Amino acid sequence: MIWCDGLALGSPTNMGLLSWKMKRFWDEAMAPHWMKVDGRIACAFSSSGGWGGGTELACQSLLTVLINFGFLVFGVTDYAGKLTTAHYGAVTAREPRDEGTQAACRLLGKRLAEWVAVFCDGRKDQHPLTKADVRLPPG
Amino acid sequence: MIWCDGLALGSPTNMGLLSWKMKRFWDEAMAPHWMKVDGRIACAFSSSGGWGGGTELACQSLLTVLINFGFLVFGVTDYAGKLTTAHYGAVTAREPRDEGTQAACRLLGKRLAEWVAVFCDGRKDQHPLTKADVRLPPG
Amino acid sequence: MIWCDGLALGSPTNMGLLSWKMKRFWDEAMAPHWMKVDGRIACAFSSSGGWGGGTELACQSLLTVLINFGFLVFGVTDYAGKLTTAHYGAVTAREPRDEGTQAACRLLGKRLAEWVAVFCDGRKDQHPLTKADVRLPPG
Amino acid sequence: MIWCDGLALGSPTNMGLLSWKMKRFWDEAMAPHWMKVDGRIACAFSSSGGWGGGTELACQSLLTVLINFGFLVFGVTDYAGKLTTAHYGAVTAREPRDEGTQAACRLLGKRLAEWVAVFCDGRKDQHPLTKADVRLPPG
Repeated sequence: MIWCDGLALGSPTNMGLLSWKMKRFWDEAMAPHWMKVDGRIACAFSSSGGWGGGTELACQSLLTVLINFGFLVFGVTDYAGKLTTAHYGAVTAREPRDEGTQAACRLLGKRLAEWVAVFCDGRKDQHPLTKADVRLPPG
Repeated sequence: MIWCDGLALGSPTNMGLLSWKMKRFWDEAMAPHWMKVDGRIACAFSSSGGWGGGTELACQSLLTVLINFGFLVFGVTDYAGKLTTAHYGAVTAREPRDEGTQAACRLLGKRLAEWVAVFCDGRKDQHPLTKADVRLPPG
Repeated sequence: MIWCDGLALGSPTNMGLLSWKMKRFWDEAMAPHWMKVDGRIACAFSSSGGWGGGTELACQSLLTVLINFGFLVFGVTDYAGKLTTAHYGAVTAREPRDEGTQAACRLLGKRLAEWVAVFCDGRKDQHPLTKADVRLPPG
Repeated sequence: MIWCDGLALGSPTNMGLLSWKMKRFWDEAMAPHWMKVDGRIACAFSSSGGWGGGTELACQSLLTVLINFGFLVFGVTDYAGKLTTAHYGAVTAREPRDEGTQAACRLLGKRLAEWVAVFCDGRKDQHPLTKADVRLPPG
């Protein structure tokens, strides 16, 4: 966390939020670094026991913590497949076995790499709006 | 809204929140009734273009509006199927065609009827903790 | 938590959410009671280091946990003073010393008692819409 | 919105969320630009009728819309005064007349300018972690 430019932060969804262990990490281990790690670029991912089980809310809670630490957080506009996106983080029910979920995880990671390249390394050719890669719309 | 005891409020997920038309309904049509409809029991449901597309956040925004109006809001603990629940409202991608989603919608509606029966009509026999109906745990 | 009808749940605001200790309580101590405590009535309160410091988001996170456990959650429509309300829970910066904050805490507690009286004990005379108590509008 | 590098997005707090008019702007006017404006840097601000009235939740809803559009969103770690910060956006009750609120608004705007300078214009000297400006801790 001290030297990274970008971060993908994940947690199991527990009671609709990040786990207490992940929360403790930020409340305790990271507290001394608060106001010293501003300006990283970050996104979130989470898995719950079922669809409708709170993964998006868990991602929202992860983003809240990251914003608190001064991070710039983002999601992905594009779709990863016909019925899958990661607008507010990559989410799934149980293990991320199906193709759509895995594509969403890869897309989120790719976007993270792109934003770090564009914003931290000055590689404007990596901007998703200008590079040639296909970006899937809904449906 | 004036005479109901319970309410299931739904909206398409637009940009991760309730639609502007639904918001306008509460901001304008319902504003004169604010502080006059406290104490109804309510829940939320929403559909987006894909999984990970913001349905849980849209339900959260609907619950926020309902809480603002003094409603008591709830979700469902039980699972509706192997991989489907409605912990913070019933959610789906696109039309609610698959069995799990439809079961989640029915379960949320049933729970709404139960809470209204228990809390508004004094029918304690309808409490989900005491009636005989099967309640599915995760998985 | 096992026998209560109503609950006011509070936590310090840590990184914009409930504290890890409070989260652990629900993730661990309360987990065996999940699906066994549905239908309680609950609200939230929180304090942070400063205004704009995340108290409302911390209350939202507490309500998310409560909804996960099947609780019916609420806020207060009325104002507690000229510039203070508790729409989504009672909030303050630092210790709740000033009059407005204390009035908001009392109002939230009163509303909790009223909803429990109305919904759990069948005392419809305690409904805030019908009893004679003054309810402050905004401003 | 088409050519900006950074954006501070504000709305009155209405029912705990952005106003329906602001929502309509994104749902309708901006919809054709979705997937075409990714990668801007943005933050939020809001005012409600009273403290505890939902400003933080309204900022959260603004950030949700911005994330949906592919923006990178942030808050401010530093304090703007003894009891005022803008961790998740700048918030106030009523008009932003008092000194703390105005300082928080200025601090958020300054941070927006800094992130745009650092990330879009390659001016690493503007990074808040390295420039000489005083940054207030809590209290």
